[in-house]
Amino acid sequence: MTDPNRPRIALAMGDAAGVSAELAARVLADPAVRAAADITVIGDARVLAEGARVAGVELDIATGPENSARPRLIDLGNCDPATIPMGQVSEASGRFATENFRRALAMAAGGQADAVCFTPFNKAAMRLVTPGYDDEIGFTAEAIGFHGVAKEFNVLEGLWNARVTSHVPLSEVASLLNKAAILDNLRLTDQALRASGIARPRIAVAGLNPHAGDSGNFGREEIDIIGPAVEAGKAEQIGCDGPYPADTVFVRAKRGDFDAVLTMYHDQGQIAMKLIGFDAGVTLMGGFPFPICTAAHGTAYDIAGQGIAHPGAMRNAILLAARMAARENAAAA
Amino acid sequence: MTDPNRPRIALAMGDAAGVSAELAARVLADPAVRAAADITVIGDARVLAEGARVAGVELDIATGPENSARPRLIDLGNCDPATIPMGQVSEASGRFATENFRRALAMAAGGQADAVCFTPFNKAAMRLVTPGYDDEIGFTAEAIGFHGVAKEFNVLEGLWNARVTSHVPLSEVASLLNKAAILDNLRLTDQALRASGIARPRIAVAGLNPHAGDSGNFGREEIDIIGPAVEAGKAEQIGCDGPYPADTVFVRAKRGDFDAVLTMYHDQGQIAMKLIGFDAGVTLMGGFPFPICTAAHGTAYDIAGQGIAHPGAMRNAILLAARMAARENAAAA
Repeated sequence: MTDPNRPRIALAMGDAAGVSAELAARVLADPAVRAAADITVIGDARVLAEGARVAGVELDIATGPENSARPRLIDLGNCDPATIPMGQVSEASGRFATENFRRALAMAAGGQADAVCFTPFNKAAMRLVTPGYDDEIGFTAEAIGFHGVAKEFNVLEGLWNARVTSHVPLSEVASLLNKAAILDNLRLTDQALRASGIARPRIAVAGLNPHAGDSGNFGREEIDIIGPAVEAGKAEQIGCDGPYPADTVFVRAKRGDFDAVLTMYHDQGQIAMKLIGFDAGVTLMGGFPFPICTAAHGTAYDIAGQGIAHPGAMRNAILLAARMAARENAAAA
Repeated sequence: MTDPNRPRIALAMGDAAGVSAELAARVLADPAVRAAADITVIGDARVLAEGARVAGVELDIATGPENSARPRLIDLGNCDPATIPMGQVSEASGRFATENFRRALAMAAGGQADAVCFTPFNKAAMRLVTPGYDDEIGFTAEAIGFHGVAKEFNVLEGLWNARVTSHVPLSEVASLLNKAAILDNLRLTDQALRASGIARPRIAVAGLNPHAGDSGNFGREEIDIIGPAVEAGKAEQIGCDGPYPADTVFVRAKRGDFDAVLTMYHDQGQIAMKLIGFDAGVTLMGGFPFPICTAAHGTAYDIAGQGIAHPGAMRNAILLAARMAARENAAAA
């Protein structure tokens, strides 16, 4: 057999009404992806076949237990693509994605996979199945009974972004910031970057207010909360600095001054990351016992079924998960 | 004489401790700038000479009343560069910039100039002279006795950004939003774009919350305030649309879908605009009886006196002011 450290990835097929199926087919046909990991794709053979047809790629996968490095399919037979309204939110699409994701998480939690990836979900469809579904962090924690701290990272080649608050109204952001939460994020960012292979991560911390508060003229969170958290991080030997004005920290990060930027709220980082690399961005859920990665973009209902969806982000997601899992396997060996 | 519509620009020299003097010298030597407008630079001959020495350019300017298209200097004799600590905030530098700016505003208010430009100010130095100085909008309104609505725009070639709130703590942004304020901004943006020569401006309006509130799941301002303001703008024949998620609206704007993005707070636009064109961005104060333009960047204390400051933004600022003033002159003729 192959390298004993070779990572095993459980790839859950996402929302059936968008580009998920064609992206799954594309990455399964990608030589770099196939070389990087043993992949088990979880979903429905009919949806995957339709994805391959749309993408114009040949599916070379195993469907039974087979001792090879070929990707293999666990066919849950849980979705007939003929019944799915393409480009629309539907309970059937949400249920398909939810079931596949649960199965992938169970595999990783049970030791049959080293990492989980999934092609894009649609939040509205997920909510039709799981009311209150906000993001994958809460769902995963509940699904695998995890009680630690997990966070979503956005990852571009050479630039990571984590955020202290995420899917909350902007009006609540300031009241949700505290030194402990920022320090938790610094620790988790440092760990995740190291797990991906960066020996001494350089983390920039963004301020909250315009001009990072301009010495207290436009808000005091930098002085009262963020600055002290950065100092606490430094005291733990985390390579962090700041708070920096949000509108220039990404200019500096883009030119290579930092490996990661820790932002205080969702759009502070997402505006920058999507401008820097819209087609290539990866979302990593870090802090769980295994890495979970997906494309940062969504289901792209507007171009679903046309075969034009760019697989770059999904490819990068699987390659990042494979790299992190391989390092973990090597460390455990 | 030259074209009777040829604009007259009063150019105030900014903070003396940064790159302002070298940028002034550079733009005064720029053939495109000299061709675009009659420029009166206001400051001190010694500071300007030092700027020319640092920039390595020849000053070809008139110093007395002279009937030519050469730039001319009004030498207020108000700053000896030998007494200025370079790269540091000082009252002397702030006073120099403040006096020059007041004089330039008075010229335009009195009909001796069609537009005002200035090389970068340092807010901390301005505050040593004018306590409570937050930005140029408030200062200008007071200096010329203006009681209307004026706003700051950030302008890149082909992409404008205006914001409903600016130098306020992020925690206060949501409470400062209302339909009337957004509609005022839409009107002013539409007017300013038209004044710059865009016949039918396409304005995208950003949401406030992550994913523009995700249908109310992460905040209701999009539903209760921003959406109704956009509809009111449309009813006035303003070419506006939205609210759009902030993290993708700039990706679309960058590729040309919109002429302007109206953002709800400072960093929402600034993060994007600085990433798209850090060296080229222009700040326009619109809504006053005459355009006021400067570079979007600051005094760059860290590289002052080295002759390496990029004049692109300052050049674009003067060219934009000249274009707007020339159109106004032609319309009035």
